[in-house]
Amino acid sequence: MDRLRVGVLGPTGMMGQRFVQMLCGHPWFDLTALYVSRSSIGKRYSEAVSWKLGPEVPEQASSIRIAEPEAKAMRKEKVDLVFSALPADSAATIEKPLSVAGIHVVTNSSYHRMDPDVPLMIPEVNGDHLRILQGRKRKGILVTNPNCSTTGLVMGLDPIRKVIGSEVFVSTYQALSGAGYPGVASLDIMGNVVPFIRDEEDKLIFEPAKIMGSLRSGKYVPANIRVAANCVRVPVRDGHTISVAFKVKKGTDPKGIISLLRAKKGLKGLPFSPAKPISVRDEEDRPRPDMDAFTGDPPGMVVTAGRIRVDDGIARMFFLVNNTIRGGAGNSILIAEQCLKEGYI
Amino acid sequence: MDRLRVGVLGPTGMMGQRFVQMLCGHPWFDLTALYVSRSSIGKRYSEAVSWKLGPEVPEQASSIRIAEPEAKAMRKEKVDLVFSALPADSAATIEKPLSVAGIHVVTNSSYHRMDPDVPLMIPEVNGDHLRILQGRKRKGILVTNPNCSTTGLVMGLDPIRKVIGSEVFVSTYQALSGAGYPGVASLDIMGNVVPFIRDEEDKLIFEPAKIMGSLRSGKYVPANIRVAANCVRVPVRDGHTISVAFKVKKGTDPKGIISLLRAKKGLKGLPFSPAKPISVRDEEDRPRPDMDAFTGDPPGMVVTAGRIRVDDGIARMFFLVNNTIRGGAGNSILIAEQCLKEGYI
Amino acid sequence: MDRLRVGVLGPTGMMGQRFVQMLCGHPWFDLTALYVSRSSIGKRYSEAVSWKLGPEVPEQASSIRIAEPEAKAMRKEKVDLVFSALPADSAATIEKPLSVAGIHVVTNSSYHRMDPDVPLMIPEVNGDHLRILQGRKRKGILVTNPNCSTTGLVMGLDPIRKVIGSEVFVSTYQALSGAGYPGVASLDIMGNVVPFIRDEEDKLIFEPAKIMGSLRSGKYVPANIRVAANCVRVPVRDGHTISVAFKVKKGTDPKGIISLLRAKKGLKGLPFSPAKPISVRDEEDRPRPDMDAFTGDPPGMVVTAGRIRVDDGIARMFFLVNNTIRGGAGNSILIAEQCLKEGYI
Amino acid sequence: MDRLRVGVLGPTGMMGQRFVQMLCGHPWFDLTALYVSRSSIGKRYSEAVSWKLGPEVPEQASSIRIAEPEAKAMRKEKVDLVFSALPADSAATIEKPLSVAGIHVVTNSSYHRMDPDVPLMIPEVNGDHLRILQGRKRKGILVTNPNCSTTGLVMGLDPIRKVIGSEVFVSTYQALSGAGYPGVASLDIMGNVVPFIRDEEDKLIFEPAKIMGSLRSGKYVPANIRVAANCVRVPVRDGHTISVAFKVKKGTDPKGIISLLRAKKGLKGLPFSPAKPISVRDEEDRPRPDMDAFTGDPPGMVVTAGRIRVDDGIARMFFLVNNTIRGGAGNSILIAEQCLKEGYI
Repeated sequence: MDRLRVGVLGPTGMMGQRFVQMLCGHPWFDLTALYVSRSSIGKRYSEAVSWKLGPEVPEQASSIRIAEPEAKAMRKEKVDLVFSALPADSAATIEKPLSVAGIHVVTNSSYHRMDPDVPLMIPEVNGDHLRILQGRKRKGILVTNPNCSTTGLVMGLDPIRKVIGSEVFVSTYQALSGAGYPGVASLDIMGNVVPFIRDEEDKLIFEPAKIMGSLRSGKYVPANIRVAANCVRVPVRDGHTISVAFKVKKGTDPKGIISLLRAKKGLKGLPFSPAKPISVRDEEDRPRPDMDAFTGDPPGMVVTAGRIRVDDGIARMFFLVNNTIRGGAGNSILIAEQCLKEGYI
Repeated sequence: MDRLRVGVLGPTGMMGQRFVQMLCGHPWFDLTALYVSRSSIGKRYSEAVSWKLGPEVPEQASSIRIAEPEAKAMRKEKVDLVFSALPADSAATIEKPLSVAGIHVVTNSSYHRMDPDVPLMIPEVNGDHLRILQGRKRKGILVTNPNCSTTGLVMGLDPIRKVIGSEVFVSTYQALSGAGYPGVASLDIMGNVVPFIRDEEDKLIFEPAKIMGSLRSGKYVPANIRVAANCVRVPVRDGHTISVAFKVKKGTDPKGIISLLRAKKGLKGLPFSPAKPISVRDEEDRPRPDMDAFTGDPPGMVVTAGRIRVDDGIARMFFLVNNTIRGGAGNSILIAEQCLKEGYI
Repeated sequence: MDRLRVGVLGPTGMMGQRFVQMLCGHPWFDLTALYVSRSSIGKRYSEAVSWKLGPEVPEQASSIRIAEPEAKAMRKEKVDLVFSALPADSAATIEKPLSVAGIHVVTNSSYHRMDPDVPLMIPEVNGDHLRILQGRKRKGILVTNPNCSTTGLVMGLDPIRKVIGSEVFVSTYQALSGAGYPGVASLDIMGNVVPFIRDEEDKLIFEPAKIMGSLRSGKYVPANIRVAANCVRVPVRDGHTISVAFKVKKGTDPKGIISLLRAKKGLKGLPFSPAKPISVRDEEDRPRPDMDAFTGDPPGMVVTAGRIRVDDGIARMFFLVNNTIRGGAGNSILIAEQCLKEGYI
Repeated sequence: MDRLRVGVLGPTGMMGQRFVQMLCGHPWFDLTALYVSRSSIGKRYSEAVSWKLGPEVPEQASSIRIAEPEAKAMRKEKVDLVFSALPADSAATIEKPLSVAGIHVVTNSSYHRMDPDVPLMIPEVNGDHLRILQGRKRKGILVTNPNCSTTGLVMGLDPIRKVIGSEVFVSTYQALSGAGYPGVASLDIMGNVVPFIRDEEDKLIFEPAKIMGSLRSGKYVPANIRVAANCVRVPVRDGHTISVAFKVKKGTDPKGIISLLRAKKGLKGLPFSPAKPISVRDEEDRPRPDMDAFTGDPPGMVVTAGRIRVDDGIARMFFLVNNTIRGGAGNSILIAEQCLKEGYI
């Protein structure tokens, strides 16, 4: 298979950096282009970015000059696929025009997630939703990645959906990297928790039903899953922890839930899909961000579950997702792998 | 009124220090004695304690010599009331014998909380439960303080109990001071959350029904309140934040909940009962530990509520309680004030 | 004595909030006016500020409407004295014109600190420097407060200056509140230290010599004190800790240093001057921000010293200063008290 | 070359875990044995350890059964070399007897560091000190690793020793992992700094002179280097930052210092010696623990220097060392590599 030349939109923010980091060395994709619409056009990436993911900007990306996100130039450079880490407002004006112009776009941005013709993907959960791309008019595909907390929640709920007997009550413990950079002021969060993240609770209400729903005659039929969420920022760098509780169907016990979660398999032949996308811990105090946020291969692609209990008909448990990897850049790249393998790219 | 001479059992731990701090300068109680059963017998308090609540051990307590907790000596010293910050295992052997011997004991310890003849008190919520002490055989009373998270939850739920239409789903964000000293290792909690606190979830299940229940013919009839809790330690020094969700009865809206909470009044004539025991915040990001943990007069005696929403029949909100003050020492002292005023002491 | 009507310039930032908080309830000063040059003109303070110092904006300040900083209007409102928490660039254009127009200005801003006709004051250290204001042409005085770290360092060094035999080597551990709000991004400082604070090291080099210097014939003669500083931000909310080392003159021992520090007295008759401006701790692990940052009366006006050792002719010790109180607003208010008492206002 | 079977003494603490982690997969050493003298004898490592360095105990070590540290059994198992992470008191009774009995011991423990016949090694700095082992009576070698802060300081000072013209003034910002587990209580260090680490400052005074000294006729001649240190614990997980200042010899400028540091080379043919053991950063705010603590190959073996300035004859700079890797287990393993290559093992 030929390697595909790819670019990143919005590569200087926290999520953009994660895209750059995960694409460097990717077995199928060659990161050759970086785009933003701002003041850093023309600069080398190493000059434009305040790199936060280690001592050095990855060598492969370091000298790429940041360019305007224009389809024409992309085609000229043979960049057929771009990953987007744009904020919602830029995404609104940039992503769809690019895909119309024939550039494939896989995006972490929230802007198009609920569009009726745009798949909202977690490959191991709803890979079949890519079918909605068949017979599309646009030459370039436009595919979205869910919200970071949604991804963690849905990956945990999907394998056990048949035991869920009520609304799902969710409280989150969300990491700072999810708020970008500079993001949360240290004076607000150090030694503190902040019980508010703008728009986050709504995403947890609307996105799961689309992802867990089904496609019938090319239209989305949302799943009958209802989430009530309280979202909270905590002083953790990476890894959203999610407290989950719901009434179970009769006869459900923890063992049953655990074996459903452990039975979940990855997608064969895709480099970023771990053999087991869910890790269930038996320890009494897991999952924890410091230990579980970088589980999997690549690190951070596995969701960790733990403290699975059922009492008086109510199941309680925790899920943990790496918010910028499985909950962002890593999942987007996995989506692109699936699209490529299945011929959508 | 004559001032009452009082002592503290277990004054060197985090909760014991809070008792000492709050009793120094109390208008009704004179802190004159400190007791433990360990190696520090005979030492001055300032030598025995690793004081964590400010630059200096309060002068009033500083030179009190730590003594054995013996009823005889207490009576000799005219210490008629002791507050207990003992760990559960010491409480098991020390508290009841003292009360049998005529010493009044108000305790933060969990050991006797569910005893059928021991009131579990939040004065503004179930002050009438003190009646169970009437006609008691023991000369000294034994009264308990609820678990810190329970106190925050119940103070918030009690005024709105008539709108609660289902189980109450709770996730906590609990402060480090609740784990005592040395308590949680910094390597475990710095930049992290730990989704496990031993025995905590059970306390949140059992204690609210007792406190919100009623006394009939001298026996407890538990309230019909059911809590499903996930308890989590977070890197916050003081103040437990509690995420709460439940189905509401028809017609309930946020305004109704807010006005019920704001209508709650304190107990007149008790120094530690704030005029309004619940503060409801309108800001979109409150309550927060850094701003709300020390609300009230005395600071930390008010529970703060915020983010009160009702959607599709489900109410979501947050409560915040200072875990060592209203959730511990402060509430115990308020209980003693009530007992004194009502003649139980 | 009549109470003086005072205002605050730049009251919404971290330092401005501290001014507001410390002026509410001040025995001599009535906070009646707040000024900025920005978008919040006309708003009530409670609407304009994101209050960070407790649950509520102080009632006294809450409904003051923010006005333009014009001398004419100030005189009309009988506001004769303003405290400034302006950033250096605004200070440059606002402070001197106000003082020329007859408004007294006491400022925390760095812009005029090294001006030859502007006193740089720590009242207990160089109160006599106010003499430079005598015979001034401006009707309003303009007096400055040193940098926060400088203040802590100089208050500690001044009483022991006669034993210092070399350069003073300083490394700082500086709190987040010193960087304003939003200030330091949580992703930069959580679980981290950052060995750089813009311009800070230079202030520690130049300011001490002026403060510890003398006035001769109306001109500053800098003290012969040389500081070499490395300044570091640490994840602490309040309180700069300062590591200090220098060669001592022959015969110096820790006891001598300690008794010089303990002998230092406050200024009588000034409400904000503690009886003992320096507290020396004997414990092996003090000073610490969590315990010592709010020492004194008012809290935070005392500098704490500790770990005073002399080995092989080198003294090592630590100082701790509350950076927004003694290192800022509190010291400015104390300066104003002194100016008022001595007739400069 | 045949692979060598090795063991770890004290493998369950923080430093012991780092040894285990770094030995798993080592190209020359096979980790086959784990020893302690405590209650976990006979248990599998995965049962005995509370693993803190990632989601899982490394598979290679997981099922090793913990044994008593007896030389006889070691020889039987052909374990000829053990790495020690023992606390000083256990080290005192275990390490020397093992080496006398013919087992090679390379230790991170402080107990024997200043012994006149025991080399205190940083291979890139004083590799020639191993000569003291020649003609030794003991069959097994006993070699020590310096204190973690010492290692960072000496690696930075050694290449520039010729420009140092005075005492070296040092203030440290030391990470929590250096205090072991449970180590520092979260209530002591969260949002705080603690200016005291037992015995640490003395180690920084005595160890550098030995390491930077020379061997003459089989005896140590200490270097003429004098350190005055203030040691402080900060809320950082990994990586000690060291603030350094000293008078320089005439004509010294930052460029000169930087080029000396950059010229320093690693040791060829040793897997754990990075090509460049010192990284000098040009950014204005480096080194920082979050970015630089895991620099090098293996990660954490490189010391990072930055903010190198010379003003008025005084040099100021920062060094950063990974305290459990280059400052501990990693350096010990590198020492063993050197001993093996040079025939001492």
